[in-house]
Amino acid sequence: MKSHTAYLTLNTKTRREYINITRDIISELKKSGIQEGLCLVNAMHITASVYINDAESGLIQDFDDFLEGLAPHEPISRYRHNNTGEDNGDAHIKRTIMGREVVVAVTEGRLDFGPWEQIYYAEFDGRRQKRILVKIIGE
Amino acid sequence: MKSHTAYLTLNTKTRREYINITRDIISELKKSGIQEGLCLVNAMHITASVYINDAESGLIQDFDDFLEGLAPHEPISRYRHNNTGEDNGDAHIKRTIMGREVVVAVTEGRLDFGPWEQIYYAEFDGRRQKRILVKIIGE
Amino acid sequence: MKSHTAYLTLNTKTRREYINITRDIISELKKSGIQEGLCLVNAMHITASVYINDAESGLIQDFDDFLEGLAPHEPISRYRHNNTGEDNGDAHIKRTIMGREVVVAVTEGRLDFGPWEQIYYAEFDGRRQKRILVKIIGE
Repeated sequence: MKSHTAYLTLNTKTRREYINITRDIISELKKSGIQEGLCLVNAMHITASVYINDAESGLIQDFDDFLEGLAPHEPISRYRHNNTGEDNGDAHIKRTIMGREVVVAVTEGRLDFGPWEQIYYAEFDGRRQKRILVKIIGE
Repeated sequence: MKSHTAYLTLNTKTRREYINITRDIISELKKSGIQEGLCLVNAMHITASVYINDAESGLIQDFDDFLEGLAPHEPISRYRHNNTGEDNGDAHIKRTIMGREVVVAVTEGRLDFGPWEQIYYAEFDGRRQKRILVKIIGE
Repeated sequence: MKSHTAYLTLNTKTRREYINITRDIISELKKSGIQEGLCLVNAMHITASVYINDAESGLIQDFDDFLEGLAPHEPISRYRHNNTGEDNGDAHIKRTIMGREVVVAVTEGRLDFGPWEQIYYAEFDGRRQKRILVKIIGE
């Protein structure tokens, strides 16, 4: 069994941001040389998500509206977590709805994707450096 | 390490549909000959989910009511994504709540399940052919 | 390829409970002797979740408030599932939002975590014995 580990670093500029990382994951898969296996991609921060969906700007805005509707950022006092001095209570909940990780099949050296699947990193408490983990195992 | 890849094809008849695919996954596991490992099952479409829960019709209706309450199909104009000419903005959000994929342990050649775990495919934009990916790795 | 399987047993005392199981998973990883691979942790019951987030009591209360707001336990008659004689319709939905499972990378014999990642078991229909599955594969 082979394995490949990589840590991607992102500098997010705004509080909330949705970044297509599909090319970065494909690049890591090529480096791994793995033909058949599983590829895990996860946020290493607990206020961010990795998810799979469409690269369509309207949809991304729909996700953002939906999440802000369910768990609004303000008022800050809405979340007990913010009593610790943080202001990111909403971000922990938004990340939970969108998910921490994806597991993607690797077949014949490619991410085994349907026609519209793209891997996104979603940041909910940005404006600082964040890390994404890629772990590929197989043969 | 062994691996097994299969693509299941479903013809969904209604917009939203919940289909128990547990037997199909068990059948693929038997074909694989894998005794110990991991089994990934994911929707290959971004308006559909694979999830694990109970085979109980009332519960399935509860899920459907819950999802339609959170992200209603209509009015179509509710979703920016639908400005592209689609009418499935809600389906992308419903799929995100229910999840894209499940990863199941394989132990002694069986899906290592608790007493009530069943694998479902949930369609949120149906009435056409859809695909599910099964990838099993192990030994 | 090596694999390691363990079943953790918990006795939950209240209907809803959030339990940090990170140490238990680290202990299983050490027993496995696996240095590079993937670690699956999942609830074996369909009214419970395994998720990764912060070990902060305010945040845990925020999660609980959020889930109870979206899918309240009462009135019991709110859920068709409860027509079967159950009173846990809400718990199936809460578990779905929080997720069934996590997959964690194993690197150099450790759970490859960001600084704040902790593994939690979330119970939504407790007061009885429950099981968690740990499956680690790799080398």
